[in-house]
Amino acid sequence: MKTIPGLALVGEDLVQVEQRMREAPHENIEPLITAIDTILNSGGKRVRPALALLTNRFYRPTEDKVISLAAAVEMLHTATLVHDDLIDNALLRRGNPTLNAIWSPGATVLTGDFLFAWAANLAAQTEHMRVMSIFSRTLMVICSGEIRQLFQRFWREQTHQDYERRIFAKTASLFAAATEAAAVLASAPEPEVGALRDYGHQLGMAFQIVDDVLDFVGSSREMGKPVGSDMRQGIVTLPILYYLDLHPDDELLTRIFEGHADNGVVEAAVAHIRQAGAVDAALDDARFYVQRAQAALTGFPANGYRQAMLDLADFVVQRRV
Amino acid sequence: MKTIPGLALVGEDLVQVEQRMREAPHENIEPLITAIDTILNSGGKRVRPALALLTNRFYRPTEDKVISLAAAVEMLHTATLVHDDLIDNALLRRGNPTLNAIWSPGATVLTGDFLFAWAANLAAQTEHMRVMSIFSRTLMVICSGEIRQLFQRFWREQTHQDYERRIFAKTASLFAAATEAAAVLASAPEPEVGALRDYGHQLGMAFQIVDDVLDFVGSSREMGKPVGSDMRQGIVTLPILYYLDLHPDDELLTRIFEGHADNGVVEAAVAHIRQAGAVDAALDDARFYVQRAQAALTGFPANGYRQAMLDLADFVVQRRV
Repeated sequence: MKTIPGLALVGEDLVQVEQRMREAPHENIEPLITAIDTILNSGGKRVRPALALLTNRFYRPTEDKVISLAAAVEMLHTATLVHDDLIDNALLRRGNPTLNAIWSPGATVLTGDFLFAWAANLAAQTEHMRVMSIFSRTLMVICSGEIRQLFQRFWREQTHQDYERRIFAKTASLFAAATEAAAVLASAPEPEVGALRDYGHQLGMAFQIVDDVLDFVGSSREMGKPVGSDMRQGIVTLPILYYLDLHPDDELLTRIFEGHADNGVVEAAVAHIRQAGAVDAALDDARFYVQRAQAALTGFPANGYRQAMLDLADFVVQRRV
Repeated sequence: MKTIPGLALVGEDLVQVEQRMREAPHENIEPLITAIDTILNSGGKRVRPALALLTNRFYRPTEDKVISLAAAVEMLHTATLVHDDLIDNALLRRGNPTLNAIWSPGATVLTGDFLFAWAANLAAQTEHMRVMSIFSRTLMVICSGEIRQLFQRFWREQTHQDYERRIFAKTASLFAAATEAAAVLASAPEPEVGALRDYGHQLGMAFQIVDDVLDFVGSSREMGKPVGSDMRQGIVTLPILYYLDLHPDDELLTRIFEGHADNGVVEAAVAHIRQAGAVDAALDDARFYVQRAQAALTGFPANGYRQAMLDLADFVVQRRV
């Protein structure tokens, strides 16, 4: 977390969020205790809770309920990762073994379900009906986005619009929910709730594009998973779309889309996509979203929280992990 | 639904519940539309929504929000079935192919997740914070109960207490939530909320015991799944516990607990368990819970709704499916 600017402002809060996430009522079920430990110890950047905290602290320096909200948002994200890794048969995340790498599929499904439930409980701790509505609506957007992504794998004819819709659902919707709910919890004026939601939304779009770019430019060591993982799974991301705009009949990608590409083919395709400037084009889109996120904060008082949110947006396109 | 007494009182409401469940925002994702149709068309007794409706109508004949609550409860139940069938690799439910029988595990996991999300959204439609808290707490109890059940499979040393705890978590907790939340939504006096919750709780215990008994006495045709399914999966139910009390070293059960029992062994064990009176002993427990459920309604006005709830309790131990 040291690499993320501005988070010092909410550093103590983030420690509390971490603690709250661990308060899951595991009822002394040994495997569940192990699972929660494994998942929470493997870390994560905690960008989503930071967004909720910065937004809320902007208005209310002492509200405790935002700790539960921030924990709910991160727990929801974590729950989706558990099921994602199972579905992708991914064995590593952030350099650590995934739950499905060490457990049966059944236990992994149920642990993911438990974490979804725990996220809902954390959200309920806010005791704020509108926050709960935002939370449950977002959960559904994420789930339908995941299904869309699954059924759009290996689908060559998809457009930039299909991609944008998908990354809104799987990522930006939760970023937007984090800032919106945190603003609602702080009783922010309605136009400001809208602006802060928009900030989260645009930032989330940038974040996911960069995440998708890192599948092409990150090293396996940095990312804790093999390069080209998404492409291997048939997930069509923005660099691929830009590359296909230039080379619609590319043979390597044809083989990948047919679902029988070995490591050599994937690595060669990664190299071609980088060289063609498709990664740079995708990053340009990410920068555009970052600017829109920052523009959404125009008109807010120029205090430390606003600055931290501006810096966080810059960080999103500069990060390497 | 014709076989369940007293439901005529809420028949029209149940039609609305069915419609509301189908209002899931599938966003025209073809596979999701198919999945929702398949799951909802395969029916179910709709006992849980009926409980919510009868409880609420006792106080408020016209409240619309209870339709959403009843739909939320049934949808939550349905979501757990989707993941259960995947984990058990069950191919039939109520005589119809399960989702996992026709789809990939990934698609089945995500569809279950979507249904959980839809259930949470339906609960949020009540716009009642306490209802949401009951709902999210129950979701977590169910999930931890499922995990407990998974890790207690093929475990011979478990006690009646372990069993009771598990069936509370997986079944009775949701029955109790249905009646409690419906009473809360109707602004029932607090002691009555407690009594109605208790009614749901006791009824749920009886319901699950009978469900477990039907694995031994129902025919495959009636149940829509093979006899002895639970035992084959290593799930220790009440008839097995009573049988083990009498025959702690039974050889057939030893083979089943060792996880390598063929159909012949399972069928022979089923016959032994029936003959030993273990099924009758389990049914006695169920009847005891039914009496407690009915006793919880003492002191309520003797109107048609109360009578329907008393009849529903009797039905639970008489049902064959």
